[in-house]
Amino acid sequence: MQSTILSRRDIAFMLYEWLDAQALGQRARFQDHNRETFDAAIDTAEQISTELFAPHNKKSDQQEPHAIAGDGCLRVQIIPEVKTALDAFSAAGLMAAGQDFERDGMQLPTVVEKVLSAYFTAANVSTAAYIFLTISNANTLLKHGSALQVRRFVEPMFAGKFFGTMCLSEPQAGSSLSDITTRAEPDPVAGPEGERQFRLRGNKMWISAGEHDLAGNIVHLVLAKIPGPDGKLVPGVKGISLFVVPKFLVNDDGSLRERNDVVLAGLNHKMGNRGTSNCLLNFGEGKFKPEGKGGAIGYLVGQPGQGLACMFHMMNEARIAVGLGAAVLGYTGYLHALDYARNRPQGRHPAQKDPAQPQLPIIEHTDVRRMLLAQKAYVEGGLGLVLYSARLVDEQRTAETPEAREHAGRLLDFLTPITKSWPSQWCVEANSLAIQVHGGYGYTREYNVEQFYRDNRLNAIHEGTHGIHGLDLLGRKVTLQDGALFKSFAGELRKTVRKVRGSVAVPREDSANLTVAQATQLMADLTAHAAALEAAWQRVEQVTQTLYAAGDMNKTLANASVYLEAVGHVVVAWIWLQQALLAASHLPGASADDADFYRGKLQACRYFFHWELPKVEAQLALLESLDTTTLDMQDRWF
Amino acid sequence: MQSTILSRRDIAFMLYEWLDAQALGQRARFQDHNRETFDAAIDTAEQISTELFAPHNKKSDQQEPHAIAGDGCLRVQIIPEVKTALDAFSAAGLMAAGQDFERDGMQLPTVVEKVLSAYFTAANVSTAAYIFLTISNANTLLKHGSALQVRRFVEPMFAGKFFGTMCLSEPQAGSSLSDITTRAEPDPVAGPEGERQFRLRGNKMWISAGEHDLAGNIVHLVLAKIPGPDGKLVPGVKGISLFVVPKFLVNDDGSLRERNDVVLAGLNHKMGNRGTSNCLLNFGEGKFKPEGKGGAIGYLVGQPGQGLACMFHMMNEARIAVGLGAAVLGYTGYLHALDYARNRPQGRHPAQKDPAQPQLPIIEHTDVRRMLLAQKAYVEGGLGLVLYSARLVDEQRTAETPEAREHAGRLLDFLTPITKSWPSQWCVEANSLAIQVHGGYGYTREYNVEQFYRDNRLNAIHEGTHGIHGLDLLGRKVTLQDGALFKSFAGELRKTVRKVRGSVAVPREDSANLTVAQATQLMADLTAHAAALEAAWQRVEQVTQTLYAAGDMNKTLANASVYLEAVGHVVVAWIWLQQALLAASHLPGASADDADFYRGKLQACRYFFHWELPKVEAQLALLESLDTTTLDMQDRWF
Repeated sequence: MQSTILSRRDIAFMLYEWLDAQALGQRARFQDHNRETFDAAIDTAEQISTELFAPHNKKSDQQEPHAIAGDGCLRVQIIPEVKTALDAFSAAGLMAAGQDFERDGMQLPTVVEKVLSAYFTAANVSTAAYIFLTISNANTLLKHGSALQVRRFVEPMFAGKFFGTMCLSEPQAGSSLSDITTRAEPDPVAGPEGERQFRLRGNKMWISAGEHDLAGNIVHLVLAKIPGPDGKLVPGVKGISLFVVPKFLVNDDGSLRERNDVVLAGLNHKMGNRGTSNCLLNFGEGKFKPEGKGGAIGYLVGQPGQGLACMFHMMNEARIAVGLGAAVLGYTGYLHALDYARNRPQGRHPAQKDPAQPQLPIIEHTDVRRMLLAQKAYVEGGLGLVLYSARLVDEQRTAETPEAREHAGRLLDFLTPITKSWPSQWCVEANSLAIQVHGGYGYTREYNVEQFYRDNRLNAIHEGTHGIHGLDLLGRKVTLQDGALFKSFAGELRKTVRKVRGSVAVPREDSANLTVAQATQLMADLTAHAAALEAAWQRVEQVTQTLYAAGDMNKTLANASVYLEAVGHVVVAWIWLQQALLAASHLPGASADDADFYRGKLQACRYFFHWELPKVEAQLALLESLDTTTLDMQDRWF
Repeated sequence: MQSTILSRRDIAFMLYEWLDAQALGQRARFQDHNRETFDAAIDTAEQISTELFAPHNKKSDQQEPHAIAGDGCLRVQIIPEVKTALDAFSAAGLMAAGQDFERDGMQLPTVVEKVLSAYFTAANVSTAAYIFLTISNANTLLKHGSALQVRRFVEPMFAGKFFGTMCLSEPQAGSSLSDITTRAEPDPVAGPEGERQFRLRGNKMWISAGEHDLAGNIVHLVLAKIPGPDGKLVPGVKGISLFVVPKFLVNDDGSLRERNDVVLAGLNHKMGNRGTSNCLLNFGEGKFKPEGKGGAIGYLVGQPGQGLACMFHMMNEARIAVGLGAAVLGYTGYLHALDYARNRPQGRHPAQKDPAQPQLPIIEHTDVRRMLLAQKAYVEGGLGLVLYSARLVDEQRTAETPEAREHAGRLLDFLTPITKSWPSQWCVEANSLAIQVHGGYGYTREYNVEQFYRDNRLNAIHEGTHGIHGLDLLGRKVTLQDGALFKSFAGELRKTVRKVRGSVAVPREDSANLTVAQATQLMADLTAHAAALEAAWQRVEQVTQTLYAAGDMNKTLANASVYLEAVGHVVVAWIWLQQALLAASHLPGASADDADFYRGKLQACRYFFHWELPKVEAQLALLESLDTTTLDMQDRWF
C-alpha cells in the first residue's frame, strides 16, 4: 500500500523538478549537501513519522492530555507514545536539522526542513507541535537572545532536552496584543551569572505545550510589560518586551535548579489538535518562590519595548508552519480518501444499471472523482505554495547577490499572509471532501478523516486569524515600500506567463506518451491558462487601485478578507501553472508511471483553472464596487 | 438575554407575515386553529426545548451512548436527561402534533409542526432525533400499513410509548440500496391475529436510535428481500419489500410479548450527533428464538416489491427534516456568535488606534459583522427555504383545488433536493463562521459552537449524499413530467420578480422609519435584486437546455453537484427577495424594534444579492462549457 501520509513522488517533484532544491548545494552554506543527503534526511523523517508518529495519532485524540495534581501544582499527563516519538525525533538529530554544523545541526535548507516537518505534521499534528514550537522558540532566542541565554536555553532545546513555548495571548488580549497586562518588574537582585532579571506576574492563554513532562524543562518566551516609574503599564505595543521564563531555573553547568513560578491554571479542551496540551498559565501567582521571592523569574530578550519586533521573526516562521500544517492535513486526508475510493464498492455507472453486475469501486463515479480532484488541487496547490515560500526563505538567506536576497524577501513578505491563510481555508475544505468521499464511515471516529477535519479547523484561527491576515495583505503588504512587494510578485507571475507562452511540448519518437495532436492540445490548454492567469492578475491590480482610490481606509479595508481570498486563489493558480508547465515538459520522455503522475498534475491544474480560478471574478467585482453592505450593517439590526 | 436557540421574532415573521400560516385556519382540516393556537404550541416547544433539551446538549456529546452487556445481548446506556426530555415532549402531546384530533393529535399544519421541530432540533439535535425518527416511521406506517399494524405500532408511537427507526442501509449497501441482502423468508405460521409473517436475517448499518431503553419498544421499519422460488434474491430495487420488525413482539391488547431477534451488534462512534445511538443491528442471528424459531419476525408493509415506493414518503419527509436540522443548527450557532460578538471586547477601529482607550465589542469590527451577516443570510435563508417547503406540504394536502394541490406538489418535488442540500452545505459554513467569530474560544469544547459544527457536518451525508441530490435534481426533477416541475418553479420565481416591480414603499407621515429618498433607494435596490434574480434564472434555463442538448448522459450529469449548488443559490436568493419585499412594505409603519428587524432583513438580502448570488455565474459557465475535467480524470493519474 502507498503511504497515506504524503506522496513521496510528489515531494520529489516539488523539491527537485520544480524548486530546484539540489541547486542549493552550490551555495557555501549548503555545500556539503546534495539530493542524496536531502533524501537521506527525508527517508529518516518518513520512517520515524510512519512508525512512531502516525500510529498514536488517534489515541492522542481519544486520550487527550489531562491535568492531575502533583509537585505542589497541577501537572499534565500525556500518553507515553508521545514521548517515545519525540525522543526518537531528537535522537535522530532532527531538532537541529536547520542549524549550523557547529551547533550539531544538519545545516539543511529551509525548504528541505519544511519537507521533514511535513511528514511529522501530516502523521500527527499534535505530537509534532511540541517540536515545532521548540524550534521556533529556539530560533527566536538564537537571533535576539544573549550568548548566555543561547548557551543556557537554546542549546538544550536543539538537543531535544528542553522544549519551548510562545506566550503571547492573555484571556483579554488575543488578536489585540497591545492590551496584554502581564507585568515584568525589575528584580534588584542579579541572576547567577550577573544578568539582570525580572519578576513576572500575569496570565497567559492558549499556550500550546505550556505544561508537560516530555522534556526536562520548558522554556517560555513571554511578552510582558515593564511598568514605568509611576508603576503603570505603557498602553499599546510599544510597552511590550520579551522575556525568557524557564519552568525550572538553570545552573551554569546546565543542570536544573529550583522550580520557577510558572504554573498550570487549567487546560483548554479543543475540538481537534487534542494531543497538544493547551494551557492557561499563571506567572508569579505565588505557588513557588524562586530564589526566595514572589514573581516568576524572567530574563529580558533584546531591548525593552522591542518584544513584538523580536517576535516578528518567530511569527512569520510560525505562519509558514501553520500553512504547512493546514496543507499536509489536507494532503493526508486526500490520500486516505483516495485509498478508500479505490477499495469501496458502491453503485454502478449511470449507463450500466444492471443490478446483477457487481458494484464498482466508488472512484469510478464522476462525482467522487470530482471530490478527489478538488482535494488534489487544493492540497498539492497548498503544499506547493508553502514549499515555494520556504524556498524563498533560503533565497532570502543565501542568494548570491543582495538584490536577489531582497527580492526573495519581498516575495516572501507578500506571500506570507496567503501562505498562512489559503491552505487554512481550502485544505479544511479538502478534509470535508475526504469525509464526503467516505460517506457515513467518514463521519465516524473509526476512520481517520474526521479527525483531520477537526484538527485542521484550528489553522484559520491561530497565528493571526483569517481576518487579521486580510488586513495584513491589503492594509500593509500591498502598500509596503511603495508597493514594491506587490510589484515583485507581479513580476514573478508575469514571468511564468511568458515562460508558458515561450514553451512547446515536443513528442518524442521513442515514447507513446504524447502524440503531436496531444502536444498541441496540451500547449493550447496551458496557454489558455496563462492568459486566464494574466487577466485575473490584471484585475487584481485594477481592483487594488480602486480600493486605495476610495480615500477612506474604512471602505478600503472593509472587505479585506475577500481580497485575501481572491488574491490567494490567483496565487495558487500561478503555483499550479508552474507545476503544470514542468509536467508538460517532462511528460514526453517519462516512464509509464511518471507519465501518469504528470497527467495527474496537468488534470489538477486544469481543474484549478476551470473550476477554481473563475470564482475570483465575483470577488473582485464585489471589491471593485466598494461594497458597503457589511460596513453599513448595524448591531441593532441583527 | 435573548434566546440563543432561535429568534421568535423571525419565526413570527416567517410564519405570519410571509407564509400566511394563519390563513390555513380557513381550511376544513385546520378550522379549529388560528395564530393563537399556533403560538400556544410554539410556546410549549420553546419552553420544553429551552428547559429540558438544550441543557444536556453538551453532556450528551461528552457522555455519548455506550454499549453494555445485559438481557442476553448488548444494550445501550444513555444519560438520564434524554429520557426526561423525551417524556416531557410526549406528555405535552407533541408526538402527534400533526395527527388528526381523533388520533389524539393536534391536527397542526406541517409548517407549524416544523417550527416545533426547529426548536427541539436547534436545542439538541441528538435527543430530538429519537422523536423525529419515530414520527417519520409512524407516518409511513400510517400511510402504508394495515389497520392491525396501525393499531399495534403506530398508535403507541404517537403516544410516545414506542419509538421507531428506519433500517435501510447495510454495511455493503448505502447509497446503492438495490444491493441490500437482508432476507425475509415467509413463515408458514401465522401471527397472533392471523397475519402473515416473515423471518428476517441480515445486518443493518447506520441505524439511528436502533437500540436504547428510552421507550417500551422499538419499531423497526426494515427493507429486505423476499427470496424467489429458487431461494435467490432478486437483484435491484424491484426485489425490495418493507417490513415492520418490533424489538418486542406485541399482544392484541398492546402489551409486550417476547423479545424478537433484533440485536445490537455495535455502535458507531461519530464526530458529532453523538447523543443519538447509531447502530449496527443484526436481524435473526439467533440470540433470541421468537415463537420458538430462528429469524426475526417481521410483518410485510404494503405489497411485496414495493418497499422503496413505501419508503419514498418517509424519505421526502426526512429530507425536509434534514434541511431543517441543518438550518437550525446554523441558526443557533449564529445566535451564539452574535451574543459573543456583542460581549467580547477586543481591539479598536482602524481609525481609532489609541491603546489607552478601552477595547470595543468585536461586533464593531467590519470583518466580524461580515461573518455575522453571512451567517444571518445563510441561516435565515435556509430556514426560510425549509419552512416554505413545509408550507407546500400543507398546500399539497389541503389546498382547495386539485390544480393548486398539484402545483404545490410539483414545487415541493422540485425543491426537495435543494431544501435538503443547501442548508447542509451553507449552514455548516455558518457554523464555521460562528467558530471564527469566537476565535480560540470557539475552537474549545467550553463553548457550544464547535459542537454545532460537528453535529451539522452529518447533514450532507445522510438521507442521500450531496452528490445523490445533484443527480436527483438534474437527472430526475428537471425532466420529470416533461419539465413541469421546473416550469412550475420558474413561474413562481417570475411571479416574485413581477411583484417586486409592481411594488412601491410609501413613507408614512407618522413615522420616521423611512424618508422619501430612502424609500426610493430601497425600491431601486429591490428592483435591482429582482433583475439579478431573473437574469440568474434565465441563465439556469439556458444552461439546463445546453446540458440536455449534450446528448450523452455521462456528460449531462458529470457536474450535477455544481448544478445543485448553483440552482440552490438562485432559489435562496428568491427566498430572500420574498422576505425583503415584505420587510420593505412593513418598514414604513413599524415600531422602532420592528424597524430594526426589517432593516436587518433588508441588509441580509442585500448581502445575499451582492455577495452570494454573483458566485453562481462561474458555476453556470462551467456547466455550460460541458466541462469534462472530472469525467476525463483517470484513477491511475491520482
